Amino acid sequence: MRSIALTIAYEGSAYAGWQVQPGQLTIQAELERALARITGESIRVTGSGRTDAGVHALGQVAGFQTSGTMSAEVFQRALNAELPEDIAVLSAAEAVPDFHPIRDSVSKRYRYSMDDSPVRDVFARRLVWHYRRPLDEALMAAGATHLLGRHDFSSFETAGAPRPDSIRTISHLSVVRGQDELRNRITIEVEADGFLYNMVRAIVGTLVEVGRGAQPVEWVGEVLKSADRSQAGPTAPPQGLCLLWVKYPDRIFVQ
Amino acid sequence: MRSIALTIAYEGSAYAGWQVQPGQLTIQAELERALARITGESIRVTGSGRTDAGVHALGQVAGFQTSGTMSAEVFQRALNAELPEDIAVLSAAEAVPDFHPIRDSVSKRYRYSMDDSPVRDVFARRLVWHYRRPLDEALMAAGATHLLGRHDFSSFETAGAPRPDSIRTISHLSVVRGQDELRNRITIEVEADGFLYNMVRAIVGTLVEVGRGAQPVEWVGEVLKSADRSQAGPTAPPQGLCLLWVKYPDRIFVQ
Repeated sequence: MRSIALTIAYEGSAYAGWQVQPGQLTIQAELERALARITGESIRVTGSGRTDAGVHALGQVAGFQTSGTMSAEVFQRALNAELPEDIAVLSAAEAVPDFHPIRDSVSKRYRYSMDDSPVRDVFARRLVWHYRRPLDEALMAAGATHLLGRHDFSSFETAGAPRPDSIRTISHLSVVRGQDELRNRITIEVEADGFLYNMVRAIVGTLVEVGRGAQPVEWVGEVLKSADRSQAGPTAPPQGLCLLWVKYPDRIFVQ
Repeated sequence: MRSIALTIAYEGSAYAGWQVQPGQLTIQAELERALARITGESIRVTGSGRTDAGVHALGQVAGFQTSGTMSAEVFQRALNAELPEDIAVLSAAEAVPDFHPIRDSVSKRYRYSMDDSPVRDVFARRLVWHYRRPLDEALMAAGATHLLGRHDFSSFETAGAPRPDSIRTISHLSVVRGQDELRNRITIEVEADGFLYNMVRAIVGTLVEVGRGAQPVEWVGEVLKSADRSQAGPTAPPQGLCLLWVKYPDRIFVQ
């Protein structure tokens, strides 16, 4: 069996998330349906991780196995012809036969987009969290430094989907305000070796408490140390979240 | 009676266009419904011109009259609270009592956005025309120069909504390719003292014939001279079109 790795972009607004769920529209189900139409076989697609309802991806990675001879490039074109307009395969590549998108991933980066202008941006409403009051991005960035490195992130894990442990390493966490026409846009990027359930959205909700002046910068470190979800800010809404990329070791991809 | 001028942005994907039509969702109808809720009166809203189904605006201008004392700013906030998420009032200002958004307008600018990458941009699909084959934007820009100035634009007018005459003056017509991440984005901007029905979309469809190499640059001038719609290219689809702004003389706005 050959393994094919896909890099996929989707606008998640219309979907109940990545993972197949009976009676629900999901990204994984759309990919499997398209592959069945193309190959005539029932093919299981595995993603690098789930994204929730309304969450987007610019670089989700998924893999599947095939006994056919169709090249990765032809798979890409055929999938883009079969998939709905809000899902696109950006690239397809031959991977090692035992490629496993979750187990083999080294790190992932998410971007969370906010808009703190008083009037909503009608063109971005599916892609940003419109927060009507001004936020201080410098305070948010200062608060974020408390989360860098290897920690127990229990305070930022929504109950219901427990992982074996809640220790993760955040290698990048930036809070940046745009310039000129994007001066009301605040972009938060988080890269880590793995993420707990709703971790980015809980981090964003917590940084917003600092950015709006309700909590001091140091509070972010106290929330982390408490290992208690009830100490953190509320979970930010899904539409601002986008899975930017997933990193794999070079040996995964066959040339 | 006082006159209030509104600058309005909307994502037109869900609407049958600007103008009220029985049984259809339209921008004008949403504004009138919101004003009725706010004031308890039946208020007619006049736009600077119609936009078609699926066409967007970043700076549509509309006016209405009121006998009330509510300030323009309070109208803006109240409207944004009542309007659906895909319509927003960007500003509101007191205008001269006889303000008429169509008659008083000096010029308008439209932007048409295209994407000529082989794979669609899932996040922009409601806002750009995805053209799967590469376009030569330098040829399109050269063709566009034939349309600058005062001409009879009959070749670029869709039948069905005839204007008293078809002479218009195009004061700006640019074709620009984006850079870096936007290198597949081609932006066409057209400013004129007025537009015929589907004029921008017919111009874009014509420039695309040149950009894809099916017609020489000079052909655009021949199409213009023919004054015959059947000589021009097809009408480009609506989702790439956005009304950027409408200019008025300073005397319209009361300070």
